[in-house]
Amino acid sequence: MSKYDVIVLGSGPGGYVAAIRASQLGLKTAVIEKESLGGVCLNWGCIPTKALLKSADVFNYLKHAEDYGLTVKEYDKDFTKVVERSRGVADGMSKGVQFLLKKNKIDVINGFGKLKPGKKVDVDGKEYSADHIIIATGARSRELPNLKQDGKKVIGYREAMTLKTQPKSMIVVGSGAIGSEFAHFYNAMGTEVTIVEFLPNLVPLEDEDVSKQFERSLKKAGIKVMTNSSVEKVDTSGKMVKATVKTKKGEEIIEAEIVLSAVGIASNLDGIGLEDVGIVTDRDKIMVNDWYQTNIPGYYAIGDVVPGPALAHVASAEGITCVEKIAGIHVEAIDYGNIPGCTYATPEIASVGMTEKQAKEAGYELKVGKFPFSASGKASASGAKDGFVKVIFDAKYGEWLGCHMIGAGVTDMIAEAVLGRKLETTGHEVLKAIHPHPTMSEAVMEAVADAYGEVIHL
Amino acid sequence: MSKYDVIVLGSGPGGYVAAIRASQLGLKTAVIEKESLGGVCLNWGCIPTKALLKSADVFNYLKHAEDYGLTVKEYDKDFTKVVERSRGVADGMSKGVQFLLKKNKIDVINGFGKLKPGKKVDVDGKEYSADHIIIATGARSRELPNLKQDGKKVIGYREAMTLKTQPKSMIVVGSGAIGSEFAHFYNAMGTEVTIVEFLPNLVPLEDEDVSKQFERSLKKAGIKVMTNSSVEKVDTSGKMVKATVKTKKGEEIIEAEIVLSAVGIASNLDGIGLEDVGIVTDRDKIMVNDWYQTNIPGYYAIGDVVPGPALAHVASAEGITCVEKIAGIHVEAIDYGNIPGCTYATPEIASVGMTEKQAKEAGYELKVGKFPFSASGKASASGAKDGFVKVIFDAKYGEWLGCHMIGAGVTDMIAEAVLGRKLETTGHEVLKAIHPHPTMSEAVMEAVADAYGEVIHL
Repeated sequence: MSKYDVIVLGSGPGGYVAAIRASQLGLKTAVIEKESLGGVCLNWGCIPTKALLKSADVFNYLKHAEDYGLTVKEYDKDFTKVVERSRGVADGMSKGVQFLLKKNKIDVINGFGKLKPGKKVDVDGKEYSADHIIIATGARSRELPNLKQDGKKVIGYREAMTLKTQPKSMIVVGSGAIGSEFAHFYNAMGTEVTIVEFLPNLVPLEDEDVSKQFERSLKKAGIKVMTNSSVEKVDTSGKMVKATVKTKKGEEIIEAEIVLSAVGIASNLDGIGLEDVGIVTDRDKIMVNDWYQTNIPGYYAIGDVVPGPALAHVASAEGITCVEKIAGIHVEAIDYGNIPGCTYATPEIASVGMTEKQAKEAGYELKVGKFPFSASGKASASGAKDGFVKVIFDAKYGEWLGCHMIGAGVTDMIAEAVLGRKLETTGHEVLKAIHPHPTMSEAVMEAVADAYGEVIHL
Repeated sequence: MSKYDVIVLGSGPGGYVAAIRASQLGLKTAVIEKESLGGVCLNWGCIPTKALLKSADVFNYLKHAEDYGLTVKEYDKDFTKVVERSRGVADGMSKGVQFLLKKNKIDVINGFGKLKPGKKVDVDGKEYSADHIIIATGARSRELPNLKQDGKKVIGYREAMTLKTQPKSMIVVGSGAIGSEFAHFYNAMGTEVTIVEFLPNLVPLEDEDVSKQFERSLKKAGIKVMTNSSVEKVDTSGKMVKATVKTKKGEEIIEAEIVLSAVGIASNLDGIGLEDVGIVTDRDKIMVNDWYQTNIPGYYAIGDVVPGPALAHVASAEGITCVEKIAGIHVEAIDYGNIPGCTYATPEIASVGMTEKQAKEAGYELKVGKFPFSASGKASASGAKDGFVKVIFDAKYGEWLGCHMIGAGVTDMIAEAVLGRKLETTGHEVLKAIHPHPTMSEAVMEAVADAYGEVIHL
């Protein structure tokens, strides 16, 4: 029986990152993976979708080339090639993880790992043991009872990124990051897209101002938006899917070639032996403490299987924290109040901290500032004037409670707010940090200035 | 005679920003401008060039559409329209400044302002007085004696952004931000471009690693690069310009339709009455203290006419600092060690703080980290793998001495480093600030991790 210091169950951005950090810290490490290295993020999530979205961006440039003084006579997308490119990028990244694991001398065990008592894991009949076993099995697309996925006409994100032919029409159910990104992608490619959101606002986790701007932008791009609406049932018997949508005004039947269900995720907890070991779960999540220890010593859990936002960067951070604690390094617990979230549609959305509503509900008196990209020189020059940066400060002590961005490139701009908040910056310090001109990032400085009555360009 | 609290001479990003802030602080303010509001930056610099560069970016997407699974059969640029778009953006921004000045109840005085003793300014025969007069007259393209600009065959940046027809070939003299951006723009548009740099490295103010990467990228894009070379003389008598270039290997004569001189700037100090008032200058700059006071009480100077980097964002910050001090606000002096600089070519360049060489020369023991975008998932998905982020820390106390970026979108990413450095972050704090995945900004976190031997994706 092979013995390790650390065995990681699952090689997604939680698992492989935990394994690499463990190896860096001198721990003998193995990763168990039943599919491709890199997990959903690399193979079926973050990375391949960004490749698709890049093709959509470029396609949009072709459509609007005249706006930039250019002429395009004949152009088209080759849907198969767009998908192929995306798969190629994903494969390349998966190979990259393989290289990294090898370089870090981490054993990769292919197969389905099942936890056993006594800090053991069974992989298809072969047993491995470790002092520390980290569960990082991730999640999959959640199925609603009235929206069963058949993989053909009612699909999840996996199928949505590998369709053989482009559908003429699509209903996207759910407007979180996954739903919104696919809605944008297919709409840009020329599919007729309807997005159905149960809650009153699109991207319902975001600040309301962001949701409203996003809805305006999607509608302008030609997407049909139905909020306060739910798909009650789907009839897949005909050529088209007939979806019965309950709206505030009553029921409506809409038709599309394909329905994409993007209503969240479900943890991969089945059959991995949690009950055999006696690991406590609650509502689809494994219960852990600040160091990702489960109730059973020697067993840990990170990523989508534990509470907290199901995001790749959170999983990676949890993996590193978990492993550093195992190795005896002094480590701080993750601040779940300072985790950025991104949606890579057009416009992009990025945010960190509290929304204005949350901050008010928490009893803060607020200083709120907002700077629209329509007032930004760089945005004008780039032809990307949609969107804004909104900042929320506590009026009393100046704490930066939240930052909400919508616009071109904001997913790369939110890091400033994350670091600033981590370092407990005041608004005044952000204001006096000289942002280069002309950049989109100036909007952060100006939004802060607006919160304090010092904005220049409004 | 009209009397003001503050008169600002010049309406560039130093002047108009100072005026707006002054007005916000309750000071009766006027701006004197002889040309278009917004100065060089808005009308002949930052903004119109970014518009041109955006057209170049989109044109490059047309050329490489196949890489993204798209097909373009017939495409072309309309050079006139590209330039028109750029002028339109500049005009829009200039009108924006007009609106802002009006909204802030700032008087705009059109004409050439000349300083008079006794805190007065003469504008074409009419006199104005103020308690505080701020000189913000900016700068223009510098002329070398052996490279006189005739505005036709030997041109400066103004002409370069408004050429009636696109030249087939161009020699760009100087590879700072201005030279590099025009070299990239014209090359992308199809002009045969040779860039001549006197110093051993392109973008000579940047870290050497950045310069080398930039040279590789420009060469890959088809630009001819001559470093350690200087234009000794130009012969404009024929149809083509013949430039005699002195290289390490001897003299070489190269021909082009147009020579663009981009060898820096000269302050606009002539005829503005400095001598009449007795204001001290030194080597083309007005001498000021931390609050931009000249040697003569009541006279101040900001922006390109004072020492320090001649950048729009520096001018704006100086204007705000100057005016806040006048208004009696407690204000900190600008930290000239924490000013970001950007070059908006492809790839983009952004940096702040010391280069590795400068840090070594300053006697620091260093921890240097580097993360290439070739290892970034987002960069792969975007097809933008050129470049890297490089970070430099003091090994002893952990101070973040410098940050150097080259790649897609880095001009919007440098703000994180500026704010982090302002807040005196340690590397460890940057590392533990959770950057969203997948973004280009993760490269900052990974570069820091590399400096401390904790990088995951290398």
